[in-house]
Amino acid sequence: MRKEKDLIGEESLDEKLYYGIHTYRAKDNFRLNYHNVKEEIIKAVILVKKAAAYANYKIEKLSKEKYEIIIEACDKIYNDKKILDENFEICALQGGAGTSINMNANEVIANVALEISGKEKGDYSFINPIEDINMSQSTNDVIPTAVKIAAIKVLRELVDNVMELQLGLQEKEHQFSNVFKIGRTQLQDAVPITLGDEFGSYAEAISRDRWRLYKMEERIRQVNIGGTAVGTGVGAPLKYRFIITEEIRNLTEFGMARAENLIDSTQNLDVFVEISGLLKSLAVNLSKISNDLRLMSSGPRAGLNEIELPILQAGSSIMPGKVNPVGAEFIKQIYYKVVGNDLAITMAAGDGEFELNAMFPIIADLILENLEILRDGVKIFTEKVIKGIKANEEVCRNYLENSWSVATLLIDKIGYNKLTEILKEAKIKGKTYKEIIIEKNILNENEMKNLF
Amino acid sequence: MRKEKDLIGEESLDEKLYYGIHTYRAKDNFRLNYHNVKEEIIKAVILVKKAAAYANYKIEKLSKEKYEIIIEACDKIYNDKKILDENFEICALQGGAGTSINMNANEVIANVALEISGKEKGDYSFINPIEDINMSQSTNDVIPTAVKIAAIKVLRELVDNVMELQLGLQEKEHQFSNVFKIGRTQLQDAVPITLGDEFGSYAEAISRDRWRLYKMEERIRQVNIGGTAVGTGVGAPLKYRFIITEEIRNLTEFGMARAENLIDSTQNLDVFVEISGLLKSLAVNLSKISNDLRLMSSGPRAGLNEIELPILQAGSSIMPGKVNPVGAEFIKQIYYKVVGNDLAITMAAGDGEFELNAMFPIIADLILENLEILRDGVKIFTEKVIKGIKANEEVCRNYLENSWSVATLLIDKIGYNKLTEILKEAKIKGKTYKEIIIEKNILNENEMKNLF
Amino acid sequence: MRKEKDLIGEESLDEKLYYGIHTYRAKDNFRLNYHNVKEEIIKAVILVKKAAAYANYKIEKLSKEKYEIIIEACDKIYNDKKILDENFEICALQGGAGTSINMNANEVIANVALEISGKEKGDYSFINPIEDINMSQSTNDVIPTAVKIAAIKVLRELVDNVMELQLGLQEKEHQFSNVFKIGRTQLQDAVPITLGDEFGSYAEAISRDRWRLYKMEERIRQVNIGGTAVGTGVGAPLKYRFIITEEIRNLTEFGMARAENLIDSTQNLDVFVEISGLLKSLAVNLSKISNDLRLMSSGPRAGLNEIELPILQAGSSIMPGKVNPVGAEFIKQIYYKVVGNDLAITMAAGDGEFELNAMFPIIADLILENLEILRDGVKIFTEKVIKGIKANEEVCRNYLENSWSVATLLIDKIGYNKLTEILKEAKIKGKTYKEIIIEKNILNENEMKNLF
Amino acid sequence: MRKEKDLIGEESLDEKLYYGIHTYRAKDNFRLNYHNVKEEIIKAVILVKKAAAYANYKIEKLSKEKYEIIIEACDKIYNDKKILDENFEICALQGGAGTSINMNANEVIANVALEISGKEKGDYSFINPIEDINMSQSTNDVIPTAVKIAAIKVLRELVDNVMELQLGLQEKEHQFSNVFKIGRTQLQDAVPITLGDEFGSYAEAISRDRWRLYKMEERIRQVNIGGTAVGTGVGAPLKYRFIITEEIRNLTEFGMARAENLIDSTQNLDVFVEISGLLKSLAVNLSKISNDLRLMSSGPRAGLNEIELPILQAGSSIMPGKVNPVGAEFIKQIYYKVVGNDLAITMAAGDGEFELNAMFPIIADLILENLEILRDGVKIFTEKVIKGIKANEEVCRNYLENSWSVATLLIDKIGYNKLTEILKEAKIKGKTYKEIIIEKNILNENEMKNLF
Repeated sequence: MRKEKDLIGEESLDEKLYYGIHTYRAKDNFRLNYHNVKEEIIKAVILVKKAAAYANYKIEKLSKEKYEIIIEACDKIYNDKKILDENFEICALQGGAGTSINMNANEVIANVALEISGKEKGDYSFINPIEDINMSQSTNDVIPTAVKIAAIKVLRELVDNVMELQLGLQEKEHQFSNVFKIGRTQLQDAVPITLGDEFGSYAEAISRDRWRLYKMEERIRQVNIGGTAVGTGVGAPLKYRFIITEEIRNLTEFGMARAENLIDSTQNLDVFVEISGLLKSLAVNLSKISNDLRLMSSGPRAGLNEIELPILQAGSSIMPGKVNPVGAEFIKQIYYKVVGNDLAITMAAGDGEFELNAMFPIIADLILENLEILRDGVKIFTEKVIKGIKANEEVCRNYLENSWSVATLLIDKIGYNKLTEILKEAKIKGKTYKEIIIEKNILNENEMKNLF
Repeated sequence: MRKEKDLIGEESLDEKLYYGIHTYRAKDNFRLNYHNVKEEIIKAVILVKKAAAYANYKIEKLSKEKYEIIIEACDKIYNDKKILDENFEICALQGGAGTSINMNANEVIANVALEISGKEKGDYSFINPIEDINMSQSTNDVIPTAVKIAAIKVLRELVDNVMELQLGLQEKEHQFSNVFKIGRTQLQDAVPITLGDEFGSYAEAISRDRWRLYKMEERIRQVNIGGTAVGTGVGAPLKYRFIITEEIRNLTEFGMARAENLIDSTQNLDVFVEISGLLKSLAVNLSKISNDLRLMSSGPRAGLNEIELPILQAGSSIMPGKVNPVGAEFIKQIYYKVVGNDLAITMAAGDGEFELNAMFPIIADLILENLEILRDGVKIFTEKVIKGIKANEEVCRNYLENSWSVATLLIDKIGYNKLTEILKEAKIKGKTYKEIIIEKNILNENEMKNLF
Repeated sequence: MRKEKDLIGEESLDEKLYYGIHTYRAKDNFRLNYHNVKEEIIKAVILVKKAAAYANYKIEKLSKEKYEIIIEACDKIYNDKKILDENFEICALQGGAGTSINMNANEVIANVALEISGKEKGDYSFINPIEDINMSQSTNDVIPTAVKIAAIKVLRELVDNVMELQLGLQEKEHQFSNVFKIGRTQLQDAVPITLGDEFGSYAEAISRDRWRLYKMEERIRQVNIGGTAVGTGVGAPLKYRFIITEEIRNLTEFGMARAENLIDSTQNLDVFVEISGLLKSLAVNLSKISNDLRLMSSGPRAGLNEIELPILQAGSSIMPGKVNPVGAEFIKQIYYKVVGNDLAITMAAGDGEFELNAMFPIIADLILENLEILRDGVKIFTEKVIKGIKANEEVCRNYLENSWSVATLLIDKIGYNKLTEILKEAKIKGKTYKEIIIEKNILNENEMKNLF
Repeated sequence: MRKEKDLIGEESLDEKLYYGIHTYRAKDNFRLNYHNVKEEIIKAVILVKKAAAYANYKIEKLSKEKYEIIIEACDKIYNDKKILDENFEICALQGGAGTSINMNANEVIANVALEISGKEKGDYSFINPIEDINMSQSTNDVIPTAVKIAAIKVLRELVDNVMELQLGLQEKEHQFSNVFKIGRTQLQDAVPITLGDEFGSYAEAISRDRWRLYKMEERIRQVNIGGTAVGTGVGAPLKYRFIITEEIRNLTEFGMARAENLIDSTQNLDVFVEISGLLKSLAVNLSKISNDLRLMSSGPRAGLNEIELPILQAGSSIMPGKVNPVGAEFIKQIYYKVVGNDLAITMAAGDGEFELNAMFPIIADLILENLEILRDGVKIFTEKVIKGIKANEEVCRNYLENSWSVATLLIDKIGYNKLTEILKEAKIKGKTYKEIIIEKNILNENEMKNLF
C-alpha cells in the first residue's frame, strides 16, 4: 500500500493501481449501483492529454523528456483494456463538471509515466498529475472537448449502421414492389398501396435521419480546448491554444476546430440538447417502423399475418411454437430509453449557471449512451430483423380484394354521398358494393371492370 | 378612464373594468398566446378571500361594515361569469409565485366592493386591495391554498367520472362473459380468454385508479393558509389562522386542514408531483384500453374486427363509409398531454429555492389542466365509446378455432418439445396439429375430444 | 334552425353558423376544457383550400363559377375574425388525424360560398363541402400541409424576435465590456471575467438558435399536398398536384415544395420531432440566461446584487418595496412548457401506424404552441428584461477583489500544491493570500503588483 | 463445447457455462453496450423458481428427488456471485416480456441441478429447463412476480436510508434552531427565518417521502404468480397456485399476496407507473434541498456563504483551494436520471396491448435502477453532505440585519403604501428605513425598539 494525501487527509492506495487520491475520493464519493464513466470518454480524455503534452512541449513549457514519457504512457493506457478497466472506476453520475474524470486521467497517466521512467508510483516530484499532465488545462475545457471527440467517434459508427439500415429497407422496397396490399389509416382499411411503398417510406425517413446525423457532426466539432476554467484561457498560453487544437485535429482526423467564443462554449450546452433531439428523431422513426412490423407480423392465425419476421428465438416457455417479434420490441425499448435520456440531458442542460454547467457528467454519459444503443440497436435491427422479412403475398392480396377500400376509386364517378349510401346498403344486405352498384344500374359490369 | 399608480408610475384604466394597476401590469408583462389563469383557480381565490375577511372580522382587525361589503363583493364575482371573464385576464404562465393572481383578486374584489358601497372605483382610501382585501395574507399562502381547493373540486368530478367508467367496463365484462376469443401476447396468438375477461381487466385497473384518486384528496387537503410569506405567519395573528382554516373548511365542505409545518408547506411542492404522478397512472390505463379498442375494432375487412365501436362521426373526407376509432385516438392524445404536463410540473417543482417555489403558476395551471382533461375525457370515453361497444362474436370464435393456441392445453399430456415438433410439422404439411397428433397415434380422436 | 344529416342521423344547426353536421359532431365528440384548434392552423387550411380550388379549376374539374365563389368565400373567412371565432370551435385535441379540422373548413367555406351565391346554407347541391371544397384532397394531405404553412409563419416571427434578443444581448455585451467581475463555476468563486463576456456568451448561444431556426424552415417546406389519403395521390390528378403546390408557393411566398416521397411524407412525422427538438435548444438557452439573471439580481441586500433588472411590477402583497425577477421566472416557465410539449409531440410521433399517424392533432397543436409562446416570450424578455438591465459595477468589483480567485493567476509562478497550502494558511490565519506570499518571501510586493 | 438445438438450429456452447441455447440466442439478439439484467431481478427469479418447485412437489407433479435437487441448485446459484456473474449475461433491454430472463434462469438451474446429480450439462432428459424448472409457470407470471420481490427488497433498503436522511435533517434542525437568517422568496430578501426552520422543512418533506415509500410496498405486494401466460392460469393447477404464493411469502417474508384479478395483474402495469411517480416525488425534494445547499454554500467570498458543506474532494485541477458542492450536484444528477427513467417507464407502460405488456423489461430495469440510485444516493447525501454541514452564523446574522425585510413587521403599524414610500425614500437617500421613520416622526426610537 502506498499513501497519498490531499486537502482532506492521507489515504492508503493499492500498489497495483495507477490512480491517486483524487480518484480514490471520487470513487468513494459517488458510489452508486450504476456504470462507470464510459470507456469512449476515458479514451478521448487520454487523447486530449496527449495533444496537451505535445502543445506544452512545443511552447517549451514541458521538457522533451517528460513529453516523451507522457506520450508513451498515454499510448499504453489507450491500448490496454486491463488498465482502462481497473483504473477508471468512477461512477458516470458524479458531482463536479467532470473534475473527477480529469483528475483520474491525470493520475493514471502520471503513474504510468512514473513506472515507465522506473520511478515509484506517487513520486510526483518527477511527474506531477496536475502540474505536468494537466498543464495549461482545466477540467472545463478538457472534458467537453473529450466528450465531443468520443461522440463523433460513435456517431460515425452510427451513421454507417444507419446507412446499412437504409440499404436494407430499400432492398425490401424493391423486393416487395409488386406486393399489393391494403393501405391503412387509423388502423382502418383505406386505399391500396404496395408493401414496397411502405418499406420505401421507411427508407426515406431513415435517409433523413442519416442526413441529420451527418450534419450533426458539424455541430460538435467545435471545441473549447484552450479556454481552461471559464473560457478566458487563464493559464493557457495563446500559442499553446493553437497547437493543441491542431494536434487534436491530427490525432482524431475528425476536423475538430476551436470554437470562436470559448466562454460561450464552456458554459452553454445547447449543442448537446440539439444533437440529442436529432437522435430522438431517429428513435421515433425506428419506433414507427417497429409498430408496423409488429402489426403486420401479428397472428399468425388471429392477426394480420401480412409478413413474416425472421425467427430470433423461441417465444414462450409455456406455448410451444410461439414466436414473437422480439427484434421489433427491442427497438421500441431503445426508443423509450433514448427519449428518457433526452429528457435528462435537457433538464441538466437547462440548469447551467454562470461560467459552467456543473451537470455535465450526466449529459456526457447519456449522449454517449444514446449514441451507443442506437448504433448497436440499428445494426441488430438491420441484420436480424429487416433483412430476413418475407411477405405473405397471398394474405396481402386477400385483404385488398375483400376490403371496400377500392370503392374510393369510384368517388369521381359516383360522388361521395351516393357511394356512402351504397356501402351502407351493401353492409346491411351482406352484399359487395359492386353487386349493389350493378343492381342499381349505376354502372354496368363492363364499366366496373374498366375502372379497376 | 381612471388612473392608478404603483412604484413604476401611473396608468389609465378602463372605467368598466374592476381591476387595478397591478393587474394591468401583469396582463401586459405576460402577454402570451396562451390561456389565462383557470376559472376554477380564480373562484377558489375568491373563496379564500371570503374566509380571510371573515377571520379578520372575527379577530376585529376588519370592521363589520367592510367585512359585509367584501363578502357581498366576493359572492357577486363568484357567481357572475361576465365579471370573471372580463376582469381576470392574466396569462396562466406568469412570473412570480402567483402574486399577480392574488393582486388581481384583491383589486377586483376591492372595486366591486367600492361599487357596492356607492364609491368610485379606485377610491382605495375606503376599501384597499392590499390593506383590506389582502389583510393578514400573502400570495404565498393564499394561492397554494386556493389551488388545492380548485384541485379537489375538479378531482371529485373526476372521481365520479372514473366511477362511471368502471361501471361501464364492468357492464361490458358481464355482457361479454361468454364471448370466447383468442388471448394475445406480444400481438401473437396465445391462449383462450373471453372478451368479458378483458373488460374485467380494464375495470380492475380503473378501480385502482379510482382508489388512488380517492386517496389523493387526503394529500392536498392540508393547506398553508395563515403562514403568509414564508410560513412563519408574519402578519397573521394566531387566532386569525385558526378561524380562516375553519372557515375554508366550512365554505368548501372539503375537510381542508392546516398543514402542520407551514414553512415546509409553503416551499415544498412534492404533493403536486405526487398527485400528478397518480393522474399519470390513470392516463396510462386509459392508453392501454384505447390501444386494445383500436386494435380489436381494426378493419373492418383487413383488421381484427373483433368488436365494433360506436360511430361518432364520418371518418374520411375522401373514403366514403370509412369510420375511425376517433374516441380512442382522442384518449391517446389526452394521455400524451397528461404525461407532457406531468413532466413540466415535475421540472418546475424540482426548481424550488429557499422559502418558495417561484414556478408555482405553471404547476397550478397544469395540474388543473390534467384534472380537467381527464375529467372530461373519461366522461366522453365512457358515454360515447365504452357503453356502445358491440362484440363480433363469430369473428372472435373463428380466430380461436383457427389458431394453434389451444394446443397449449396439451402441454401436460405431450410435453413442450414434442408439441413444438408437432406444430412445426403441421405448419410444413399445411395440416392442423390435431391431424398430426392423431396421425402419429399420440392421442386418439376420443382422447382429443375429451381434452377440449 | 336548419337540419343536416350524416351516417349517424339528423341534427339541427344554428342558422347563424356556417358549419355543418360534421363540425357539429366533432365539437360534441371532443368537448374538453381545452383550447380550440389554433387560428393560425385554420387560416392555413383556408389558404390550402384556395389553392386547391385554383388547381381544380385549372384542370377543369371545377367550374369557373364555383371557383370564383369559393375563392371569395375563402378570402372572406380568412379576413373575418368573427367568422373564424364563431365557426371553428373544435377542440385542438381530437381523434382522427385532423379530419374534423378539414371537414370544418369544408363546411364553413361551402356555406359562406352559398351565402355569397344567394343560396340557403346547407344547399349542398349547388356547392358541396366534400365534392367541391374537398375536391382532389384528403385530410391526410391538407392538414399536414396547412400545419407546416402555419408553422413557418410563426417561425419567421420567432426568428425576428430571436434576432432582436441577440442584438439586445450584444448591446449589453458592449455596454458591460469593462465591468470586471468574478467568474463562478459550480456557484463557487473562480477566475475573473467581465459582465460583458457573460452577455456575449448568451448572445453567441442565441445566435446558434437563430441559425437553427433559420435552417428549420427548410425542413418543413416540403409538403405532401396531392398525396391525398395515403400518399399515392388517389383522387388527385397529376396535373392538379403540380398546380396546387405552385399555387401554395405563390400564396404563401414561403418557398413550399412538394415532398419527393409523398407516402413517407404522409405517414412519418419525424420532422416535427426534429423541429420541436431544435425549439427545445432555444428554450434551454433561455433557461440558462434566466438562471444567471435571477442569481445576479438576487438580494438586494442578502444576495449577489451584481445587476438590477427593470422593475416590471410590485413584487409582493405583503412585503412593501419587494421586487422580483418575474420576467426571468416567466421565461423559466415557458422553458418547462416547451420541454413538456416536446415530450408529448415525441410520444405522439412515435406512435404512427401504417399509412398515417392518427395522433397528428396534438402534434400540430403543440408545435404551434411552442412556436407561439417562444415567439411572444422572447419578445417580452428582450424588451422588458434584457434591454433595461443595469450593472452594479462597484458590487462586481468588490467581489472580485475580495475573492481568492485571482490567485489562480499565480499558479504558473508558484505551483498548484504550494498555492493550495498558502490559501489554506491564509484561511486559518484570517489573512489574505497576498500577505502570506509576501510573508514567506515567495514573491515580493513589486513582483506581486506586476503580476496583476 | 457441448451442443444444444432449438427451433432455429444447433449451436455450440461453452462447457463451463450453465446456460443453454435460449440464453445463447438472447445474449446474441440483444447485444447492446448496456448493462445486463440486474442481479436483484435474477436472484428474485431464482427464488420464485424455488417456490414453484416446492409447489409442484407438494401437488405431486414433481418428484421428491427432482424437487430436492432443484432446491439445492437454486440455493447454490443464489449464493454464488461467480455463477450469477458469468451465466446471466443478457442485456437488460430485450425484446419479449422477460422470456429470455426466465429461460436463462430455467437453463442455469437445470444445468446446475444436472451437475449436482452427477449428470452432464444439457442432459435434459433427466432435468428439463422447461418441463421441470418452468413447470406450471410462464414468463408472464414469473417475471413480474420476481421484479416485485426485487423492488420490495431495494425499497426497504431505500426506506431505511430515507429515515436516516430525515434524522440527519432533524438533527440539523435542532442544531441550527437559533441561527437567525433572512428568508428568501424568488431569490429576493424576504422576512426572517431560522436555518433550523429550513432544515425542519426539508425533514418534513422527506418524512412525507418516507411515508409514501412505506405505503408503496402495499402496491407491489400483490403478484400474479399462478396466472401463467395470460392470467387465466392455464397449465397451473389450482392447488399449486395457493401453495406457490404461500411459499413466496415464506421465502421473502415480504407479505406477498396473490392479486385478485390475475388477468388484470398480468397485462396492466400501472402500479409500476404509480411507484415510479412516487419515487419522482422523493427526487424532487432532494433536488430542492440540493438547490438550497448549493446556494447557501456559494462563495466563499462572492456568494452567500451562509453554510459550509463538508469537503469531499479537491474541486479544481486549475484553481487551488477551490472546493465545490459536488455532493449536492451528484444528487441533482440522480434527480434528472430518476425523472428521465420515470418517463421511459411511463411510455412503456402506456404501450401495453391485449393480454401482456411486451415492454416489461425496460420497466423492470428502470424501476430497479431508480430504487437503487436513490437508495445509494440518499445514503451518500446523508453521510457525506448533510451530517457535516456547518452554519456561518455571523454571515447569516449580517444579511438579516442589513436587509429591509424586517420592515415587513411594520406593515400593521404603518400600512403597506406608506411603508413602500419610506423604503423608496430610504433607497434614494441612502439611509436605512429606520432612520426615515424616525425622521418623519412616524414612530419614535423607543416604539421602534419595542417592535423588534
